[in-house]
Amino acid sequence: MKSTLLSLAILASVAAHADEGMWMPQQLPQVAKQLKADGLKLDPASLTRLTDFPMGAIVSLGGCSASFVSPQGLVITNHHCVYNSVAVNSTPQRDLLADGFFAKTMADELPAAPGSRVFVTEDVANVSTRVITPEVAKLTGRARQDAMEKNQKILVAECEKDPGYRCTVASFYGGLEFYRIRQLEIRDVRLVHAPPVGIGKFGGDTDNWMWPRHTGDYGFYRAYVGKDGKAADYAKDNVPYRPKLWLKIAKDGVKEGDFVMALGYPGRTNRHRLPSEVAFTFDWNYPAFVKASGETLAIIERETKNDPATHLKYAGQIASVNNYYKNRKGMLASYAGSDILARKTAEHEALKAWVNADPQRRAAFGGDIAAAEQLIARRDAELRRDFFLGYSMPRFLNSARTLYRLANERTKPDIERKSGYQERDAPRLASVIGGQDRTYDEKVDKALVLNFLKQYNAQPADQHDAAFDAALGIRPGMSEAELKAALDRIYAGSQLQNKDQRTAWLTKTPQDFKASNDSFIKAAVAMYDADMKREAEDDELAGNIQNAYAGYMKAKIAYLHSRGRAVYPDANSTLRVTFGNVKGRDYGADGTGSWTAFTTVKGVVAKHTGEGEFNAPERQLAAIRAKDFGRWADPKLKTVPVDFLATLDITGGNSGSAALNARGELVGLAFDGTLDSIISDWDFDPRATRDIQVDIRYILWNMEKVDHADNLLKEMGVL
Amino acid sequence: MKSTLLSLAILASVAAHADEGMWMPQQLPQVAKQLKADGLKLDPASLTRLTDFPMGAIVSLGGCSASFVSPQGLVITNHHCVYNSVAVNSTPQRDLLADGFFAKTMADELPAAPGSRVFVTEDVANVSTRVITPEVAKLTGRARQDAMEKNQKILVAECEKDPGYRCTVASFYGGLEFYRIRQLEIRDVRLVHAPPVGIGKFGGDTDNWMWPRHTGDYGFYRAYVGKDGKAADYAKDNVPYRPKLWLKIAKDGVKEGDFVMALGYPGRTNRHRLPSEVAFTFDWNYPAFVKASGETLAIIERETKNDPATHLKYAGQIASVNNYYKNRKGMLASYAGSDILARKTAEHEALKAWVNADPQRRAAFGGDIAAAEQLIARRDAELRRDFFLGYSMPRFLNSARTLYRLANERTKPDIERKSGYQERDAPRLASVIGGQDRTYDEKVDKALVLNFLKQYNAQPADQHDAAFDAALGIRPGMSEAELKAALDRIYAGSQLQNKDQRTAWLTKTPQDFKASNDSFIKAAVAMYDADMKREAEDDELAGNIQNAYAGYMKAKIAYLHSRGRAVYPDANSTLRVTFGNVKGRDYGADGTGSWTAFTTVKGVVAKHTGEGEFNAPERQLAAIRAKDFGRWADPKLKTVPVDFLATLDITGGNSGSAALNARGELVGLAFDGTLDSIISDWDFDPRATRDIQVDIRYILWNMEKVDHADNLLKEMGVL
Repeated sequence: MKSTLLSLAILASVAAHADEGMWMPQQLPQVAKQLKADGLKLDPASLTRLTDFPMGAIVSLGGCSASFVSPQGLVITNHHCVYNSVAVNSTPQRDLLADGFFAKTMADELPAAPGSRVFVTEDVANVSTRVITPEVAKLTGRARQDAMEKNQKILVAECEKDPGYRCTVASFYGGLEFYRIRQLEIRDVRLVHAPPVGIGKFGGDTDNWMWPRHTGDYGFYRAYVGKDGKAADYAKDNVPYRPKLWLKIAKDGVKEGDFVMALGYPGRTNRHRLPSEVAFTFDWNYPAFVKASGETLAIIERETKNDPATHLKYAGQIASVNNYYKNRKGMLASYAGSDILARKTAEHEALKAWVNADPQRRAAFGGDIAAAEQLIARRDAELRRDFFLGYSMPRFLNSARTLYRLANERTKPDIERKSGYQERDAPRLASVIGGQDRTYDEKVDKALVLNFLKQYNAQPADQHDAAFDAALGIRPGMSEAELKAALDRIYAGSQLQNKDQRTAWLTKTPQDFKASNDSFIKAAVAMYDADMKREAEDDELAGNIQNAYAGYMKAKIAYLHSRGRAVYPDANSTLRVTFGNVKGRDYGADGTGSWTAFTTVKGVVAKHTGEGEFNAPERQLAAIRAKDFGRWADPKLKTVPVDFLATLDITGGNSGSAALNARGELVGLAFDGTLDSIISDWDFDPRATRDIQVDIRYILWNMEKVDHADNLLKEMGVL
Repeated sequence: MKSTLLSLAILASVAAHADEGMWMPQQLPQVAKQLKADGLKLDPASLTRLTDFPMGAIVSLGGCSASFVSPQGLVITNHHCVYNSVAVNSTPQRDLLADGFFAKTMADELPAAPGSRVFVTEDVANVSTRVITPEVAKLTGRARQDAMEKNQKILVAECEKDPGYRCTVASFYGGLEFYRIRQLEIRDVRLVHAPPVGIGKFGGDTDNWMWPRHTGDYGFYRAYVGKDGKAADYAKDNVPYRPKLWLKIAKDGVKEGDFVMALGYPGRTNRHRLPSEVAFTFDWNYPAFVKASGETLAIIERETKNDPATHLKYAGQIASVNNYYKNRKGMLASYAGSDILARKTAEHEALKAWVNADPQRRAAFGGDIAAAEQLIARRDAELRRDFFLGYSMPRFLNSARTLYRLANERTKPDIERKSGYQERDAPRLASVIGGQDRTYDEKVDKALVLNFLKQYNAQPADQHDAAFDAALGIRPGMSEAELKAALDRIYAGSQLQNKDQRTAWLTKTPQDFKASNDSFIKAAVAMYDADMKREAEDDELAGNIQNAYAGYMKAKIAYLHSRGRAVYPDANSTLRVTFGNVKGRDYGADGTGSWTAFTTVKGVVAKHTGEGEFNAPERQLAAIRAKDFGRWADPKLKTVPVDFLATLDITGGNSGSAALNARGELVGLAFDGTLDSIISDWDFDPRATRDIQVDIRYILWNMEKVDHADNLLKEMGVL
């Protein structure tokens, strides 16, 4: 890593809360004492070097985390991270999901799902002063926002000159700091091995977010590059990527109390939010989301009841909505009756008291804190106003708006285009727009839109979007039948459900759009000026929020350091380290007294029903019955462990993260939290929070005794 | 109860294993010390009087247990015991299963499912010497079996002269003792209240046999009789039955450690079986059953995949097979690696050593024990031989055999007919035969039969049934295609799938059958002589087994009494009492450290997903969220308890059993065991065995706060 500037947070070497913390690798020396106390045997400084052991073996799949486990580019991650690649390679005749997949030789490996990537982080640089230049620092509102965006686009463009690389500028501490991350973007990714869903997804949605858990959530990819060693599109004669580093498999498993750390790419947490944001989220936003999700699921079920083909089209959306539905409900259940808001409020008041206690601090931060409070309250009010509008947008009206925006942006030089509409975004846009019909049914879409349009239209007139109303031809007070007639009209007048027609718009000019008679295109054109006006207002607000929020975070970090506490930034899909111990819990779910740290294959047998979500393969059950455990049995448990709990601090995006022992050897893969832990995205409670790993011994036992994947075991140095 | 003769088991007043025991009420004084130690505040002698409090309030529904809870014939039992009555009253427009049902007035009550009964036991008499008369005692084999059956039929006939009564002669201790049970058979049964399945079946099959459990497994019937107070068929102006006794609802709930007893009708246990029967069952019979059940379920799924109407026809069979499938697998899992067989063998050897140690005992019992060992081994070999034959019988071939048997029996005087084919059996036979098409599909039936016929035909020739082979036209070595062709032929040649055609055979003569060209009827006629021959052999064996087994049990009881242990008979669907304490467990399922004694409504919220098996009604969730617990919250738990664990000894048939506290007041309803407890049907392990009750406070809270069933609460004296 080219270390440029030390972050504010790195300056202080102070203690953190036990096991809380998604640390940037370079922050780890700050918590060296805690790392040693928990049991780490490596030098914490070695974890700061991204191209050194073990950090150099950690990769991102974009949304999931993973790691190299062989010099031949073999990548281990979660089953649910390779799930789509298994699905797209399945046919009714050869159901790889049900049967599992295992490539006996490299020639048998299958192309992963379109768009699959392995991102190898090669450099992380603090670019805060290149985003917030002295000139930017003087600006406010939209001008500030535009200038920051322009600086970020320049930073990305100069970094992506090398065509095999993907660069991003990530914001830390809510816009206080910026880092540019340079990743080799491996585009030829192949499926090597996935166990049957009866192992990899054992327990299904029922057990999702639950303990005791018995999911064998693992799978393998291999990264391929051109013969020149550079990233390349899929080609038969590409060669396995040769990473500089790969993880060693731990010879001995972990036991309760052992040190463990997870390395990966957590997506998003909200631990530095203002009390008003907590209240807005839990009192209004999440309940509204839960209600809307319940309605969405019910409507999709109803509309696809006797139509399995359409049901299948919505399977992805159902799974995704369900996952967040369960997640948000879990958070709300934890929040209800908790003292989270009271504590967050008290902490915020303490911070303000500390700032106000000193004239210099007051001058430096007082204004920003007050501004942040006020501006964020405004943004939340706007989110609330637009909530039903988002749900009321016909899918292809949204596509039409994206396409028309693209046509307008394409009239500008690439570097001046809005982020998301540059040339670098073209393949993704084409893929999204092209693939939409695979997940679309007009009847379902219309039923969903009608449901939310009724609720949108029932809001006071000042909460309406006039351009949207005009484009759809709706007025306050319309009956359900009238709203439905309006939808029928606009849906009937569009050809965007036709893939060729839709994708043709990717390259048309604004004039083409203005001349079109397609109802959704016409609506998009009609809404455009208002859309742009709203975006300008949003940017104005965003620029001011960034300004004020950075000041607030600066104050918060200084305040916490003054109290001897290290501060890590909220998760933002960048590489982080969390550490702690393998540990059960002294209380369990309702009706159970405690959680043990490990589950075992005994529980697989106990949960197995032979159907649905609890259907372990017969060959696995036979191996369990025969106690054919080989060297994978735990000496104390006398059987093969399946999953284990630890005190690690993870969130979505950490899926597939390598769990390493004190010597940095692979002992498992993080894949989930428990339902009463997910409130940790907002508030980390060390007594409640546990994450779930699949034990490497379960993975290896399955590979050796159930799937006979000897070649991979040899490649990983295990056989 | 008219007490006639004391049973052998009643003679000794000795201690039992802690909490093991399904005691006949008259045996309770034998375990008075244990009852008092566990906390009973009533006089144990009061529990022996069937028409006294509380025993007089306990009724059977035939397969389920229940109790009166008001002077107006209100009956409380499990939701799964009233499930069919809710289902038959449901329509697509008015889905009572989903919505629940609650009759605001008696006029709103609905007729229960056809065949629903409330049996009020009025008398139990020891008739051992009238079944095994001095004449019978001299007989062996078939003559003995026939004479015993004749004596039982006479005992039943004289008891059933009063037309509103149903009488049975039940065998205890494997034929050592016989009791005649006289029950008022109430035929006008009405559905009063059932909660939504989201409460009554919350957790569905996933949670079946599981802890933690959150099922509100309760429902209400009302018993009606004619204006003359006698049992009568349904009629609008029938009046509520006025029981002599009904249970009082406990004012205070139970807490961990409290005394509790369950009163009901357990179906069948096997604790007095020989070691060879244990080995046969667990090494061969249950594994074979599990395999066949798995195949059955998979075939039904496959054949009805895209045919919801046919799938619905098999819903009952699927549920039933699934239930036993899970049960037997649970038993096998508990048995595997246990010392059950070794212990049973050691106990049996100790018994034999005790018998052989004394010349008088040796003379009295030695021969019977040896004979029992040998005869039972023979019966088990025959069961094994006939296993696939049973599964290979087309449904309507079985019906044809039953119908032809009936025609033959009907040529004899009623008292001489085989049990099951007497006039008293006619309504049941007509209902079974008439209803068969509702649960039948030829394609599914044929696929099931073909699957097992292949396995039957793969057995050695000496394991075949020659008459069956001839009737179906199959030969050893036939290919699957040939077997299928044979089935196609015989299915195509029958009209029995037609209900009118089928029921017409209920009243035809043997000559009519012999003249028929219907393929299944012809096959039944062709198999008849062999069937009768086999029955004669079975009766010969059964008569000798009864003789020997009674001697074995006599020896076992004497042996156990000599060691100070009271002996209760295996369950046989007669009234029993089990007592113990409310108690969690110091270990839980894999991944959990212990079980607490209670679950609470918190767990309902945690498990609720809003769909499928975990879909609590919104009005219930709202009441939980609002903490609207009224007086039903537990003072220690600070919330409403849902289900609780106790050390009670129950099995199938106990469903709906009243759980009473130390003062005999209703505190819950037993409804299930846990998967690792069901091995207790064979071997009671006090450390593992727990049964599950729905807490009366959860029932009453739901009724008051969720379903507003105020009239019923008033009737039960609660409001």
